[in-house]
Amino acid sequence: MKVKVFKIGGNVVENAELLSAFAADFAAVQGPKVLIHGGGVRASALQKQLGQVPNMIEGRRVTDADTLEVVTMVYAGLCNKNVVARLQSCGCDAIGLCGADANLITATRRPAKPVDYGFVGDISVEGVRTEMLLKLLDCGLVPVLCAINHDGKGQLLNTNADTVASSVAQALAQKAEVELVYCFEKNGVLRDKDDDMSVIPLITPSVFTKLKEDGVVADGMIPKLENSFKAIAAGVSSVVIKSAANLSNNLQTTLKND
Amino acid sequence: MKVKVFKIGGNVVENAELLSAFAADFAAVQGPKVLIHGGGVRASALQKQLGQVPNMIEGRRVTDADTLEVVTMVYAGLCNKNVVARLQSCGCDAIGLCGADANLITATRRPAKPVDYGFVGDISVEGVRTEMLLKLLDCGLVPVLCAINHDGKGQLLNTNADTVASSVAQALAQKAEVELVYCFEKNGVLRDKDDDMSVIPLITPSVFTKLKEDGVVADGMIPKLENSFKAIAAGVSSVVIKSAANLSNNLQTTLKND
Repeated sequence: MKVKVFKIGGNVVENAELLSAFAADFAAVQGPKVLIHGGGVRASALQKQLGQVPNMIEGRRVTDADTLEVVTMVYAGLCNKNVVARLQSCGCDAIGLCGADANLITATRRPAKPVDYGFVGDISVEGVRTEMLLKLLDCGLVPVLCAINHDGKGQLLNTNADTVASSVAQALAQKAEVELVYCFEKNGVLRDKDDDMSVIPLITPSVFTKLKEDGVVADGMIPKLENSFKAIAAGVSSVVIKSAANLSNNLQTTLKND
Repeated sequence: MKVKVFKIGGNVVENAELLSAFAADFAAVQGPKVLIHGGGVRASALQKQLGQVPNMIEGRRVTDADTLEVVTMVYAGLCNKNVVARLQSCGCDAIGLCGADANLITATRRPAKPVDYGFVGDISVEGVRTEMLLKLLDCGLVPVLCAINHDGKGQLLNTNADTVASSVAQALAQKAEVELVYCFEKNGVLRDKDDDMSVIPLITPSVFTKLKEDGVVADGMIPKLENSFKAIAAGVSSVVIKSAANLSNNLQTTLKND
């Protein structure tokens, strides 16, 4: 079996026009598939409306009890159900879930040292209930996962959507051939960051080393690609980086082993 | 197959202690089961926090676009996921869903005349995707449904949780023996409204007629029982009315045909 695991950011979920375009393209993708989504911008906006002050440390949201309520409402409620309703309208049999649902993903609360992130969890491949995910795929369903997970003892935990995508892909890779597709704003990894058509079609570990040496790949793209190669090392067949707005075109960067 | 369909109100969902007690009792109920929940008090509270004015007409919430966002966040996000995480911690393999998920319940937007309720939907037995619900039960899962549904064209709709419970029970009754359990604050239908131990154990249509004539059953309890007997007429085997706080005790009113 081949399974495709897609990750989209909050920018897609929170923009009706972009979501419509993505949903139509995603619905047309053949075969078993899973979608993981973010929703952080909207969560910050709701926090501010409620008089809370969003507190991010190194890109991670410090999640006290009030913040946990907000992200649960926004990710698992507003974003997740709007994505599902949109996909269903395109004929895609989506089912929106968090990690507590069907005990799909168990997370571990992050230790309070060195930084106390509050109700934030870390997940690993072992936390994914792969058999149940496969059962849902066998029912013809398309799981749509937000980044709210649980500790199995009644506590919801805020986690990172990229890590959810990577962990789910690695877990499924134990039973199937898996392609992990990270959708973002650009057409792929660019040779010239100002030219969205300068997509590098294929990056292997040796190409990656060269691109870093030459300074073509820098800053935030380095950890993104490093994590992608870790997923590949853990059994994922390939990682694709492409634009959420143009899922159906051929512009993309594929990461594979040499 | 026998299936039990439970309905709990927002009062259970929104009270951590009551939810814990209910979850332990519900987890212990044997056999396939479905849970439907409300969450209206919390939705009104969030509306007020956001500067909205909750507008109820005959007990139904007028649902403009902003209100729909709030009820989607509260019912499908906050309430649903907290119930699921709590049930999972009790060993109950709950999966939290709205009607858009797996296209489980399609609703029809209510006509704008005589009263424009906005994004409010009505549902019927025909709108329930019974086969998929049975597939989820076959996976050993316990569907936990909130009262957010969709029109199949991308629009979420706010519906009534009692009607969701009744429609799901009637739909499942086409394929299984179904008991519909309405959990509320009292131990059942009371002979003396001030004595919570004066539960009437069995009400048949002929007993119901007599109770109405004698004035024992009055006010809001009459439509509740009428709707229950409609569900029975449509194939549901029995309707039980009992306290959410004491699911495991024997105090309850059972409604059945003569």
